[in-house]
Amino acid sequence: MNEHAGRLARAQAVMKREGIDALCVSVGSDLPYLTGYRAMPLERVTMLIVPADGHPELVVPGLEAPRVEVRDDAFTVTGWAESDDPIGIIDGLLGDVGTVAFGDETWSRFLLELQAINTARSFVPASEFMAGLRMVKSPDEIAALRRAAKTVDGVVDEMAGVRFSGRTERDVSREIIDRTISAGHDTMEFWIVASGPNGASPHHEPGERVIEPGDAVVVDFGGHQDGYSSDTTRMFVVGEAPYGFDDAFTVLYEAQSAAVDAVRPGVTAASLDAVARDIISEAGYGDLFIHRLGHGIGMDTHEHPYLIEGNDQVIEAGMAFSIEPGIYNPGEWGMRIEDIVVATGDGVERLNTSDRAYRVVS
Amino acid sequence: MNEHAGRLARAQAVMKREGIDALCVSVGSDLPYLTGYRAMPLERVTMLIVPADGHPELVVPGLEAPRVEVRDDAFTVTGWAESDDPIGIIDGLLGDVGTVAFGDETWSRFLLELQAINTARSFVPASEFMAGLRMVKSPDEIAALRRAAKTVDGVVDEMAGVRFSGRTERDVSREIIDRTISAGHDTMEFWIVASGPNGASPHHEPGERVIEPGDAVVVDFGGHQDGYSSDTTRMFVVGEAPYGFDDAFTVLYEAQSAAVDAVRPGVTAASLDAVARDIISEAGYGDLFIHRLGHGIGMDTHEHPYLIEGNDQVIEAGMAFSIEPGIYNPGEWGMRIEDIVVATGDGVERLNTSDRAYRVVS
Repeated sequence: MNEHAGRLARAQAVMKREGIDALCVSVGSDLPYLTGYRAMPLERVTMLIVPADGHPELVVPGLEAPRVEVRDDAFTVTGWAESDDPIGIIDGLLGDVGTVAFGDETWSRFLLELQAINTARSFVPASEFMAGLRMVKSPDEIAALRRAAKTVDGVVDEMAGVRFSGRTERDVSREIIDRTISAGHDTMEFWIVASGPNGASPHHEPGERVIEPGDAVVVDFGGHQDGYSSDTTRMFVVGEAPYGFDDAFTVLYEAQSAAVDAVRPGVTAASLDAVARDIISEAGYGDLFIHRLGHGIGMDTHEHPYLIEGNDQVIEAGMAFSIEPGIYNPGEWGMRIEDIVVATGDGVERLNTSDRAYRVVS
Repeated sequence: MNEHAGRLARAQAVMKREGIDALCVSVGSDLPYLTGYRAMPLERVTMLIVPADGHPELVVPGLEAPRVEVRDDAFTVTGWAESDDPIGIIDGLLGDVGTVAFGDETWSRFLLELQAINTARSFVPASEFMAGLRMVKSPDEIAALRRAAKTVDGVVDEMAGVRFSGRTERDVSREIIDRTISAGHDTMEFWIVASGPNGASPHHEPGERVIEPGDAVVVDFGGHQDGYSSDTTRMFVVGEAPYGFDDAFTVLYEAQSAAVDAVRPGVTAASLDAVARDIISEAGYGDLFIHRLGHGIGMDTHEHPYLIEGNDQVIEAGMAFSIEPGIYNPGEWGMRIEDIVVATGDGVERLNTSDRAYRVVS
């Protein structure tokens, strides 16, 4: 049985256990996870219908059907023609099922259309259910995440030898994009270069600000390589670090290291967040750590488990996620250190292995 | 009043007329159309809530709030913190409204969560309603589409001087991406290079096939420049055209020209499709034209109006769309010619002006 047929069978087993009669997934990573095929995010609907009992069926625009590869008869492909009614086809395939788990990222329009033509079904988000399948990575998936991490680590090391001052954030971000694609990534998903006071906005978009001596620069970037995601953050400082930066960085480094070291099967997602947050809070920076500690990663850059207060999800071997505390001093500077890690049988493997100390650049 | 405030006011006027109490939009182009702000397609929800009467409110993850720019108090921004319940916030802002138009591309998960905590509201897709606002472009929007078209036209002309044979489709597609970004595009959305028999699959993904003498190559690419989309298709032939190609191309060229010439205010979308289809069918290729004639274009590459059989949408001055008939001969070759055009007061302006004859390359 190939990996997709195996995943479909596991999905069906969980559905039976949880009383879900059918699963519908469309755009996003649930579909390629289950079938190897990624839907175009277009007005022409694509939908995989997995009954708890029976053969999965992929409904695709006829134009896309030649792009679908089916191995071992894992699912059947139904291409719809331009003048067909695809929602009617999906409705017919669903038949008289009662409870449908619906892919989180599927366009609302298609859900509303299905709800309008048949009011007897109840729909629930597929996220929890799909997260249960996708959170624990196989050795092949971990190997793919490791390769993606190695690529961005290499780019971080290259950037340590590059001049930052006198260039715009956008210019530096373009160089990071070029280097990451050249080093093997298929796509880039984000490329934050946040200099000086811009660093205090965790999701700053690189802009026309010219980087100056004395700036701390948050560099946070990632993309996809062979279908799996990278995501790392390292700090660069142009010459002398700004006032207050070194003291805070020492605390951040310690908090990030302690959270990584705390990863092992059996701890909760929330407890990892608390490890970093307690250290940062005790040093007096608690109000400046304004986001969760991290997020799962795999085919999506952000997926379950989320390392956040209140999340009792127990970490298991094979779960992969970011550990990325930050300290943001409004109007002055920001800092974040981020590694992707994977829980092992008895501890943790850090997939990003580039030096976490800040790099002094010109 | 700035353009976004004007668009929000127009949306509210239409909502009152159509009995819609509130509009919710999230990821996709409806949100930047109305506010200038584009949501991150992430698990952290962003939602603009526009009541038919009252002040629009944008609910965003706190991390993204610094990226939102509000002019003339067109809307209010509510940032939610990591431990907040954003669906609860959105539900509270919606209050006791009855009918909600919900953005088509918004993740189903958020709709299901809203439906679960309040069953009294009815949700309808916002597409028809938003299409009515977005279909007719302003002069500024048309100017942006014209600039984007000019960029890809330049790349087509550059590619006419480039060697194709001996290179993989993927390699040629990479060159197109690089040239288009260098020429001014901010992002690429698609890059079809379909050679020889691959050309018969309209949405072929460029792969490892090595282009050979005698191949016809479909080149269809586009992206975004200053927030507006490009999309053009031109044919390249390596040396001698394959058997049957020239005869079919003459028909295709005539069909595409006739459909463009038929564009004017007052005709229907379906009638334009019929103009091209009739010419292709009469020449005996009707079964090989397997998709609609075209699609609207603007902030999205595909948007209303769709030029397809059965669509009685009347074309108005300012509507922009593609005219892209194709003939696909399975196992042999495919061909498509695509221009973006805009309906003017008394006819049509072709935004893509590069030569539509096929280019012979080495």
